[in-house]
Amino acid sequence: MSTISRDVIETFENPYPHRDYVIESVCPEFTSVCPKTGQPDFGTLTLTYVPDALCYELKSLKLYLQQFRNHGAFYESVTNQILDDLVATIKPRWMKLVAEFTPRGGIRTVVTVEHGSR
Amino acid sequence: MSTISRDVIETFENPYPHRDYVIESVCPEFTSVCPKTGQPDFGTLTLTYVPDALCYELKSLKLYLQQFRNHGAFYESVTNQILDDLVATIKPRWMKLVAEFTPRGGIRTVVTVEHGSR
Amino acid sequence: MSTISRDVIETFENPYPHRDYVIESVCPEFTSVCPKTGQPDFGTLTLTYVPDALCYELKSLKLYLQQFRNHGAFYESVTNQILDDLVATIKPRWMKLVAEFTPRGGIRTVVTVEHGSR
Amino acid sequence: MSTISRDVIETFENPYPHRDYVIESVCPEFTSVCPKTGQPDFGTLTLTYVPDALCYELKSLKLYLQQFRNHGAFYESVTNQILDDLVATIKPRWMKLVAEFTPRGGIRTVVTVEHGSR
Amino acid sequence: MSTISRDVIETFENPYPHRDYVIESVCPEFTSVCPKTGQPDFGTLTLTYVPDALCYELKSLKLYLQQFRNHGAFYESVTNQILDDLVATIKPRWMKLVAEFTPRGGIRTVVTVEHGSR
Amino acid sequence: MSTISRDVIETFENPYPHRDYVIESVCPEFTSVCPKTGQPDFGTLTLTYVPDALCYELKSLKLYLQQFRNHGAFYESVTNQILDDLVATIKPRWMKLVAEFTPRGGIRTVVTVEHGSR
Amino acid sequence: MSTISRDVIETFENPYPHRDYVIESVCPEFTSVCPKTGQPDFGTLTLTYVPDALCYELKSLKLYLQQFRNHGAFYESVTNQILDDLVATIKPRWMKLVAEFTPRGGIRTVVTVEHGSR
Amino acid sequence: MSTISRDVIETFENPYPHRDYVIESVCPEFTSVCPKTGQPDFGTLTLTYVPDALCYELKSLKLYLQQFRNHGAFYESVTNQILDDLVATIKPRWMKLVAEFTPRGGIRTVVTVEHGSR
Amino acid sequence: MSTISRDVIETFENPYPHRDYVIESVCPEFTSVCPKTGQPDFGTLTLTYVPDALCYELKSLKLYLQQFRNHGAFYESVTNQILDDLVATIKPRWMKLVAEFTPRGGIRTVVTVEHGSR
Amino acid sequence: MSTISRDVIETFENPYPHRDYVIESVCPEFTSVCPKTGQPDFGTLTLTYVPDALCYELKSLKLYLQQFRNHGAFYESVTNQILDDLVATIKPRWMKLVAEFTPRGGIRTVVTVEHGSR
Repeated sequence: MSTISRDVIETFENPYPHRDYVIESVCPEFTSVCPKTGQPDFGTLTLTYVPDALCYELKSLKLYLQQFRNHGAFYESVTNQILDDLVATIKPRWMKLVAEFTPRGGIRTVVTVEHGSR
Repeated sequence: MSTISRDVIETFENPYPHRDYVIESVCPEFTSVCPKTGQPDFGTLTLTYVPDALCYELKSLKLYLQQFRNHGAFYESVTNQILDDLVATIKPRWMKLVAEFTPRGGIRTVVTVEHGSR
Repeated sequence: MSTISRDVIETFENPYPHRDYVIESVCPEFTSVCPKTGQPDFGTLTLTYVPDALCYELKSLKLYLQQFRNHGAFYESVTNQILDDLVATIKPRWMKLVAEFTPRGGIRTVVTVEHGSR
Repeated sequence: MSTISRDVIETFENPYPHRDYVIESVCPEFTSVCPKTGQPDFGTLTLTYVPDALCYELKSLKLYLQQFRNHGAFYESVTNQILDDLVATIKPRWMKLVAEFTPRGGIRTVVTVEHGSR
Repeated sequence: MSTISRDVIETFENPYPHRDYVIESVCPEFTSVCPKTGQPDFGTLTLTYVPDALCYELKSLKLYLQQFRNHGAFYESVTNQILDDLVATIKPRWMKLVAEFTPRGGIRTVVTVEHGSR
Repeated sequence: MSTISRDVIETFENPYPHRDYVIESVCPEFTSVCPKTGQPDFGTLTLTYVPDALCYELKSLKLYLQQFRNHGAFYESVTNQILDDLVATIKPRWMKLVAEFTPRGGIRTVVTVEHGSR
Repeated sequence: MSTISRDVIETFENPYPHRDYVIESVCPEFTSVCPKTGQPDFGTLTLTYVPDALCYELKSLKLYLQQFRNHGAFYESVTNQILDDLVATIKPRWMKLVAEFTPRGGIRTVVTVEHGSR
Repeated sequence: MSTISRDVIETFENPYPHRDYVIESVCPEFTSVCPKTGQPDFGTLTLTYVPDALCYELKSLKLYLQQFRNHGAFYESVTNQILDDLVATIKPRWMKLVAEFTPRGGIRTVVTVEHGSR
Repeated sequence: MSTISRDVIETFENPYPHRDYVIESVCPEFTSVCPKTGQPDFGTLTLTYVPDALCYELKSLKLYLQQFRNHGAFYESVTNQILDDLVATIKPRWMKLVAEFTPRGGIRTVVTVEHGSR
Repeated sequence: MSTISRDVIETFENPYPHRDYVIESVCPEFTSVCPKTGQPDFGTLTLTYVPDALCYELKSLKLYLQQFRNHGAFYESVTNQILDDLVATIKPRWMKLVAEFTPRGGIRTVVTVEHGSR
C-alpha cells in the first residue's frame, strides 16, 4: 500500500489577495482502493475555496490525487484527509470538499467536509 | 409478516469526531409491502447525517433495510421508524431521511423526517 | 356542473405526532373544466404538509380530486379551494399547494398557496 | 356513458396533394375512463400521417378526442378505434397512432397501430 | 412603429384577497424588434406576483404582449416597461418579471425587475 | 424458495385481431433474488408484442411478475423464462423482452430476448 | 397581409460540388400569423440539403424567413411553400424541411416535407 | 501577446436608474491562451449586475472579450481582470462574474468574483 | 507494468443455447494507464454479445478488467485486446465492444470493435 | 491570415489492421474566423473513421485543428478541407466528419461530409 504525501502540491501566489473570491475544481477521475475488500472505489471530488495568500497549482493537485490510486482508504477518512492536506498547504480563508462515490451494494455515498465558514 | 431488528446495524468509530461533517447515503433499492393491499411498495431513501462518535457500516445498513422486503409498513410509519432506529444506534448530531416512493394510483409520495437541527 | 364535497377525504391518525415532519403528494393527473370556455384544463398538484393529529388517506385524496373532472373552476379559485378543503379536514401545522397548469394560448400558469408558516 | 361520433372531425383540402409529406399531431391531454374500475386514464397520443385529398382540422380533432373524457375504453380498443375513425374520415395514404398511457399498478402501457405502410 | 397601450389588460377580482398567494405566468412566445438593427428579438417572460384586489386576465395579457411584435424596444427598457404597466393596472402586493432573451452575437441576456419585496 | 406459475396470467380476446399492432408494457418494479448471494436484484422489464388471438391482462401480469420477489433467478434464466411463459400463454405473433438490471459490482446488465421476427 | 418573395435569398457557389455532402440549418425563431384567428404562430424549422451548384447564404435565409412575421399561413402550406422556394432558388440534389410548431389548444404539430430522395 | 484595453467597452444610460434591477449576460464563447503551455483555454462567462448610471453595450462587450483570444492569462487573473475592467467602466451598484472553464487534465475549474454586495 | 491474463474470466453454460439472444454489460469504472505519459485513463466499456455455449461470469469479468488498472495501453489496442480475450474465452455467436474514454486535451475518443456480424 | 498545413498531423500504425473497426474523436473546442465579418466562429467536430494502415495521433490532431484559430474559413469549406487533409494523411477505409457550429443570427448550422461508404 502506497503512502500519501502532500508535499507534491505546488502553490502559486494568489494574484488578487485583497478580494474574497471563490475557486472551484471538479475532479471526476478520483479512484482509491477499499481497505476491506481490496476493490477499487471511484468518485468525483468538488473542491471549493476562498484563497488567502496561496492557490494550489492544478497539475500538482492532479498528481497529489493520483497518489490514492493504489491506496487503501475509507470514504470518510479519505475525504477528511484530502481537506486537511490542502488546508495545511494553502491555508485558505475557507474550503469545502464534496466527495461523491459511485454505488456499492446499490448504495451511493456522498461525504461533505468544510474548513472555516463563509 | 417479518419483524425488523435494528441490531443488525453495525457501527464504526467516526475517524474525525472533532469536525462537523456530513455523510449522505442514497439507497434507490428500498422495497416494503403495503399492509392494506399486500402489494409491494418501492422507493429511494436518502439518509444524511452529521456523525458524533459513531458511523453506520454500509453493508449492515443494506441488510437492515432488506428486512423491510416482506414487511407491511405505511409510508409515514416506515420512514419515522428507520430514522428512529438509526438515531438510536449511532446517536448522530443531526440526521435527515427523505423517502421518495414510486406512484400509486397516479400519486407519488415523499416523506421527510429529521432528528435535531443544523 | 358537479359540486365538490370535502367529505370524501378520509383521514388516519398521524403515527408520529410528537415530531414535525413533512409529507408531499405529487398528483400529475389533475383535470378540471374552464368555466368560461367549457374546455378541459390539466395540471400537476404538489401538496406538502406537516401533519398534526391527522393525515389524509391517499385513495380518498384521489377521489376528492376526481370530483373536479367535470367541474368548472378558474385556476386561482380551484387552488385556494383545495387548500381550504384539506386544511379544514386534517388541520395540519402547515400546508402548501403548488398547482402547475399546462399552457393555454402559449402561457403556462403556476398558482402557489400556503396555510401557516414554517 | 357517452358515445363517440367521428362526425365532429372537420377536414380541409390538402394544399399540396401532389407531394407525399408527413403531418404529426402530438396530443398530451388525452383522458378516458377505465370500463372496469371507473377510474380515469391519461395518455399522450401521437398521430402521424401522409395526407391524400384531405387533412383533419386541429380544433375539431381536439373536440373529437374530448368525447372520450367520460367514455369507458380499454387501451387496445380506444387506440384502434381512433385510428379507424380518422382513417374513415380523411382516407390518408398512411397513418400511425402511438398512444402512451400513464402508469397503472406500476406498469406503463404504449399501444401502436398503423394503417397502410410507408 | 406601433405604440403600446396597457388599456388592453383586463382584470378580474382576486377571489381570495385575504390570503397572500403567488401566481406565475410563463410566456415563452414573446417577440419584439431591436430598435437599432430592426431585427426581431425573441424571449421568455416569467411573471410572478402576489395579487391584492385584482388579477390580470390571461387572454388580455397575451394581447398586451403581442403589441410588442412590431415595436422597437431595448431589453432593459421593455422589461421595465412591462412591469410598470402591469403594476399600474393590477397594483399587486409584489411582482417580479424575469425576461430571458435568445442569444445575439453569441451572448444570451436575462433582465430581472421587481416591484415591492416579499 | 418460491415456485413460479404462469397460470396466474389472465388473458382477454384481442379486440382487433385482423390488424398487426404493437402493445408495450414497461414494468420498472421487477425484483428477484440472486441464487448465489441471496441478495435482491432489481430491474425494469419492457415487454413488446404483436397480439394474435389473445392479450394478457395487466393486473395478472403484475401478479405473475411478483412471484419472482422471493425467487432465486440468474439474469439470463429469468429473462428467457418470462418470455417463454408469456409466449406459451398468449401465443403472440411476435414478442420481445428487454430486462435492464441495476448495477452490481459497478456493472449494469441488460438481457434482450425475442420470439419470432417482425 | 405581406407577400413573400424568394428573390431575397442570395446564393453562393458550392465550394465542393464533386462531393455529396449535407448542410443543416436549424432556425428556432420562425414566426407567422394564423390566417383564421390572426394569432401569431411560432416554430423551429430544420432545413437539411445536399447542395448541387449552389448553397443559400445564411443571412439572406434569415431575411427570407422574416417575411413570414406578419404573413398569414397555415402550417401545411407554409412548410411546403418554403421548401418550394428554396428548391427553386438553389436546386439542391435533395432537401428536407421539418417544421415543429409550438402547442395550440394543447396539440403540438410537426410537418415534414421532402424534395428528391437520398 | 496582445494587450487588453477596456476602452472598447461602450456604455449607454441606464433607462430605469431609480430601480434596482438585475442584468445577466451569458457568454459561452470565451477563449484565451494558457501563458504556461501556449494552449487555448475555453470557458463560459456569466456576468450579473445591478446598473447604476450606465449599462455596457452588448456588441462592445463581445469585442472587449475577443481581445483575450490570443492573450495569455491564468484563470484566476483573467476573471478578476474582467470584473475590474467592467466595474471601472460602468461603476455598477453590484456585479458578479462566474467563469466556468472546460476540463484540463480531467479537472474542470470555476472562478467566481464579486464587486459589492446585495 | 502488469500483465493481463484472460484466464481469470470464468464462464457458465448458456441456459438457453437454442435461442439467439443478447446480453449487454455496461462497465463505467474502467481505468488503465497511458503508456506514453504514465497518466491514468478512464472510460466506460459496453459489451454486447449473443452467447453460444458459454456466458462470462460478471464478477470474474470485473476482475479481468481490473488487471488494466496499472497497465499501459493505447485506446485502440486495449479495446481490440479485450474483445479478443472475451471472444477466445466464450466464443460468442457475435460480440461488440464500445469503449468511451474521458476527454484528453479537450478531445473525447470512442473505439468500437466487433466480432462476427448480426 | 494564417495558412493551414496538414504536415503537423502525426500518424501511428493501426495495431489491428486485419479488423474493420471504428474510431471516433469528438472535438468540442474548434474555433475559426468568419472571412466576411472577421468574427470568431465556434463548433464541435466529430470525426469517425475505419483505419486502414494508419491512425492519426490525437495530440497532433489537436495542433492541426488549432491552426484554424486565426484562419478565415466558411463553414462548408472548412469542413470539406479538414476531411480532405485527414483522408490524404491516413487514407482510411471510411471517414465521416460532422461539424456543428454555434448559432449565428439565430440559426445553427451542421455540415456533414463523408469519404467512402460503409
